[in-house]
Amino acid sequence: MNIGIIGFGYWGPNLVRNFSSLQNCKVSAIAEANATRHELIKKQYRDVKIYLAAEELIKDNLIDAVVIATPVFSHYPLAKLALESGKHVLIEKPMTSSSRDAIELIEIAEQKKISLMVDHTFLYTGAVQKMKELVTSNALGKLSYIDSTRINLGLFQPDINVLWDLAPHDISILNYLVDERPISVNATGVSHTNNDIENIAYLTLNYNSGFIAHFNCSWSSPVKIRMMLIGGSEKMCIFNDIEPTEKIKVYDTSYSYKTDEEKRKILVDYRAGDIYLPKVNSTEALSLMAQDFVDSIINNTVPKSDAKIGLDVVKILEAAQKSIKNKGQEIKIEQ
Amino acid sequence: MNIGIIGFGYWGPNLVRNFSSLQNCKVSAIAEANATRHELIKKQYRDVKIYLAAEELIKDNLIDAVVIATPVFSHYPLAKLALESGKHVLIEKPMTSSSRDAIELIEIAEQKKISLMVDHTFLYTGAVQKMKELVTSNALGKLSYIDSTRINLGLFQPDINVLWDLAPHDISILNYLVDERPISVNATGVSHTNNDIENIAYLTLNYNSGFIAHFNCSWSSPVKIRMMLIGGSEKMCIFNDIEPTEKIKVYDTSYSYKTDEEKRKILVDYRAGDIYLPKVNSTEALSLMAQDFVDSIINNTVPKSDAKIGLDVVKILEAAQKSIKNKGQEIKIEQ
Amino acid sequence: MNIGIIGFGYWGPNLVRNFSSLQNCKVSAIAEANATRHELIKKQYRDVKIYLAAEELIKDNLIDAVVIATPVFSHYPLAKLALESGKHVLIEKPMTSSSRDAIELIEIAEQKKISLMVDHTFLYTGAVQKMKELVTSNALGKLSYIDSTRINLGLFQPDINVLWDLAPHDISILNYLVDERPISVNATGVSHTNNDIENIAYLTLNYNSGFIAHFNCSWSSPVKIRMMLIGGSEKMCIFNDIEPTEKIKVYDTSYSYKTDEEKRKILVDYRAGDIYLPKVNSTEALSLMAQDFVDSIINNTVPKSDAKIGLDVVKILEAAQKSIKNKGQEIKIEQ
Amino acid sequence: MNIGIIGFGYWGPNLVRNFSSLQNCKVSAIAEANATRHELIKKQYRDVKIYLAAEELIKDNLIDAVVIATPVFSHYPLAKLALESGKHVLIEKPMTSSSRDAIELIEIAEQKKISLMVDHTFLYTGAVQKMKELVTSNALGKLSYIDSTRINLGLFQPDINVLWDLAPHDISILNYLVDERPISVNATGVSHTNNDIENIAYLTLNYNSGFIAHFNCSWSSPVKIRMMLIGGSEKMCIFNDIEPTEKIKVYDTSYSYKTDEEKRKILVDYRAGDIYLPKVNSTEALSLMAQDFVDSIINNTVPKSDAKIGLDVVKILEAAQKSIKNKGQEIKIEQ
Repeated sequence: MNIGIIGFGYWGPNLVRNFSSLQNCKVSAIAEANATRHELIKKQYRDVKIYLAAEELIKDNLIDAVVIATPVFSHYPLAKLALESGKHVLIEKPMTSSSRDAIELIEIAEQKKISLMVDHTFLYTGAVQKMKELVTSNALGKLSYIDSTRINLGLFQPDINVLWDLAPHDISILNYLVDERPISVNATGVSHTNNDIENIAYLTLNYNSGFIAHFNCSWSSPVKIRMMLIGGSEKMCIFNDIEPTEKIKVYDTSYSYKTDEEKRKILVDYRAGDIYLPKVNSTEALSLMAQDFVDSIINNTVPKSDAKIGLDVVKILEAAQKSIKNKGQEIKIEQ
Repeated sequence: MNIGIIGFGYWGPNLVRNFSSLQNCKVSAIAEANATRHELIKKQYRDVKIYLAAEELIKDNLIDAVVIATPVFSHYPLAKLALESGKHVLIEKPMTSSSRDAIELIEIAEQKKISLMVDHTFLYTGAVQKMKELVTSNALGKLSYIDSTRINLGLFQPDINVLWDLAPHDISILNYLVDERPISVNATGVSHTNNDIENIAYLTLNYNSGFIAHFNCSWSSPVKIRMMLIGGSEKMCIFNDIEPTEKIKVYDTSYSYKTDEEKRKILVDYRAGDIYLPKVNSTEALSLMAQDFVDSIINNTVPKSDAKIGLDVVKILEAAQKSIKNKGQEIKIEQ
Repeated sequence: MNIGIIGFGYWGPNLVRNFSSLQNCKVSAIAEANATRHELIKKQYRDVKIYLAAEELIKDNLIDAVVIATPVFSHYPLAKLALESGKHVLIEKPMTSSSRDAIELIEIAEQKKISLMVDHTFLYTGAVQKMKELVTSNALGKLSYIDSTRINLGLFQPDINVLWDLAPHDISILNYLVDERPISVNATGVSHTNNDIENIAYLTLNYNSGFIAHFNCSWSSPVKIRMMLIGGSEKMCIFNDIEPTEKIKVYDTSYSYKTDEEKRKILVDYRAGDIYLPKVNSTEALSLMAQDFVDSIINNTVPKSDAKIGLDVVKILEAAQKSIKNKGQEIKIEQ
Repeated sequence: MNIGIIGFGYWGPNLVRNFSSLQNCKVSAIAEANATRHELIKKQYRDVKIYLAAEELIKDNLIDAVVIATPVFSHYPLAKLALESGKHVLIEKPMTSSSRDAIELIEIAEQKKISLMVDHTFLYTGAVQKMKELVTSNALGKLSYIDSTRINLGLFQPDINVLWDLAPHDISILNYLVDERPISVNATGVSHTNNDIENIAYLTLNYNSGFIAHFNCSWSSPVKIRMMLIGGSEKMCIFNDIEPTEKIKVYDTSYSYKTDEEKRKILVDYRAGDIYLPKVNSTEALSLMAQDFVDSIINNTVPKSDAKIGLDVVKILEAAQKSIKNKGQEIKIEQ
């Protein structure tokens, strides 16, 4: 299988390296609009075709599958062109700038019966796989909340706000772990530059069942925090991605309550017991993601990070953006 | 000066111990509605009068000043009675259940020219005093945000939600450090019990200047986190109250931006330099608070934690409550 | 049972408080050579007899058992006098300044059939009890080493070096966990004052079986570290006493080896798996120690921290002292 | 300048990569005794000559300087041959298996007036450079001790014990920071395999001035600790190499003492103040080391990590080995 990769900027080289190391595919072409980077590509990958225009790569008959690692606004037109040319498509996160675009891409892929996948790399990490196992095996019990913090002294993006930049990681993890989808969102934030693009933002997802999710995203923190708490009726769990090895901590901690009817009081039972740090697979997630894409094409299987999860992430980001711009007002999400 | 302390439950004993150790006052009476605790008081404090009814203590002519450490709903009636009896009053946080009540108490105190103070103990900690110093000396530059997390496996309160329980600490610190007051709030949250009292809640404060403050409060976390980040144009600072000694970390980190007019881009400059952990005074804050109350009476001075800060905290909590119950809608705060 | 406590300096008040709260005994007398502290005793403990001279307390017929919390050099004469007067005796660690003295005390106690115990408080902590459980149940497998670090900016003691001050904690834990006793010691150290009393010292214990123990003790560290590593053939364990709750960490980590005879090589297999943090009992250790002493008298049982462990600790300290003063030379320990 | 690198095993590839990226030299030849690795070299470095025998590379007239990254026992014969062939030589740490060999190499290099350097990479890290600055500027005052811990679940080496494997890092740092050299060493350790090669070892260095250094090295720890404490009369410092960014912590902590002659007591003053975490240069140390080697040849300068430091490290290791095998006996070091 011949892979064409569009965009050799920040993330593209990682994609090229990982797809190159897979057994059953070959990186045959790379498109990069910045001609000054072509020399670098040649030096590292001698036998690959290099294009200036993404469209030329997409038209290349040799290419079976296209990987799109360009700025968000170009995801939709490039993916559409590729899908219409019958190429399988992998898009960097976030999938598109709007849910309408994402839905259209999914429809084309379904009609053409070709693969469409979004690179939510985190789903392939050992830590998220371990959390999935904990949730699926019901070790945590009924989930009650997810609380995520992803802050750093980060690069201010010129075109998308901090939620579109950072939250896709955590929202994709949430959607991967929890089947229920939010009915609405509230988001607040602030732009400390004069371009009205938020560098700090807070997002709450509301659910019918009483589950709640919250995301704290910032490019303006002096420290790097990447932490997700998951509350369950049996156990609770922390995913601390800054820890080099002890990423997942499972607490045999929980609370339950009963209503004392006469006294009209809530009686809450607390339990705090042992803590367990399962060993987590340390295989590079991007390699597993690339393999999942190739496998989904060869075996016609649904990848972990399918376009449906990509769309659901975009729906939430879109609603969050609307809420921020409407003073935190609740914005419904249609399913 | 003779002090009467109302409430010998969870916090009362700490107040009695600290006021007892001061030079220029004496704990002369304690009121506690639960008679089974009277024996305990007698054992520890031989010469103190013990009352069952708070009103009796307030009426006692011996008493010059009253400290109210009872559930929130009773703060207003007890404080009102005490003020009207001409006693100086110290109230546990939060000051009252409504801003209207708080305003009325302030007015009475002003008319009677007597002291009215709220026990926001945190303002007297070495850590908060150090932060005040950093802000006042302009070491941090212009403040851009405060982001606070106070979560724990905490006691579910039967009468007040997690914001009324935990956020007064952090909001009082905010109001002590920052002169500007929020124009509005957004809050979201969830109750995992069936009494509709939120055990997890998130609060954003919006400001005219572009400053933003956010509070994450939870009784349902497997880990205890008590952390406040402060962003400034010159430096940033972390207050980590879990650390036994290294509570304040000052980062010589910041970013500035300029608009490249031709390219219509934001150019952001980042700076990450040394880190500095100032030594922090470890005197017990409650003792300093008690002293400040006594001094404010004797010297007719304004205490650090005056009723004005108490009122401003209540205003924010009141608006937050309204926002939560109105699906996160922005609620204005009148100043 | 009437308890007399000798020494109301640094540690004495803790002993008085804990023995006072027990059910089946009473603190009836306290001896303190510093008369200025008598007022303090009177204020806190109204009904207790106060002596200036320890000998007077020991002679008091009312007293059944004596607790000795004085400087090390006085342990032997006071304990001897008490034992000869037929009183049960609890001595603060380290038991005596020499093993000869400790042996004599043990012999007297055995002759008189009275209790003699040493306060190695750490043996009663939840953490050490959990480690004992891990060792006894063979969860760690065959132990291969203990490596202990106990460093701090500590009070330079005027009469004993840092090993006699700090190492008794860790050596008593070692002797409680491991049945085998060292055959010899090597110790090195340095005195940065001109009194030739070491403020930094290192101690290695050598064993017939290949087990090894090492202790790093210092009064001159800018940070407080209290950490013990235990290596076993099945698992390894860390006791980090600075951690407020997560004191014990059990690592499913180990290595095994086989000799490849032809190639004359060692083939080592490594295993690093899950980590487990058992919940640890947080009852105050000193209270459990006091109870164990009282129980040992009433029920004629052997306490956890018996005089035998006390003696074994002194033997090691004595040999360590000799090694330091002989340039680190190996000093044999007779068993 | 044409560089030849001998050994393309574990460390060799890092050396090739770093020397290749320098401006004023070229990696022209690589010698690797394992022919199966030649293909890998060819793939990455097209234009480099590949030798099976190190001797062939050394004889190659094209080569100006030789880098030796082979097992320790072969350092001496290869370096000798290279020096005698007039090639500049860089040797991996530890320099040789014996101080006699190291001295001979130094003598040849001096006679031939060619560069001889040892790769103690740590000296080029931002952290060690910062410590050197703190020592040189006298910010720490008079140094009183260094206490180093370097433990891990490490690869058991078949030919050298854990001190020869791990301690060269810390001893080279010590010798770089402190001008005084130890007069003697004491070392203890244990081998848990049957090849008599210690996997755990402890080393004390004794100094005339009262300075002391201690090294704790282990391949058998469940956790990775890489920490060095430095005590000074003015300040103290911790180098924690596990920390991703906060590697150096300077404590405004110290103690001083005076002797109260009458009372024959030591009066110690303690001071614990602010903590300061200087930003540390994060340039790859190996690249700076390679540059220093090339510069030393071109400019005829003395590199930071010169052969003298290499020899002093070997002297200490040699004495340590002798001490371990002689039951911890003090072994003198001749200077």
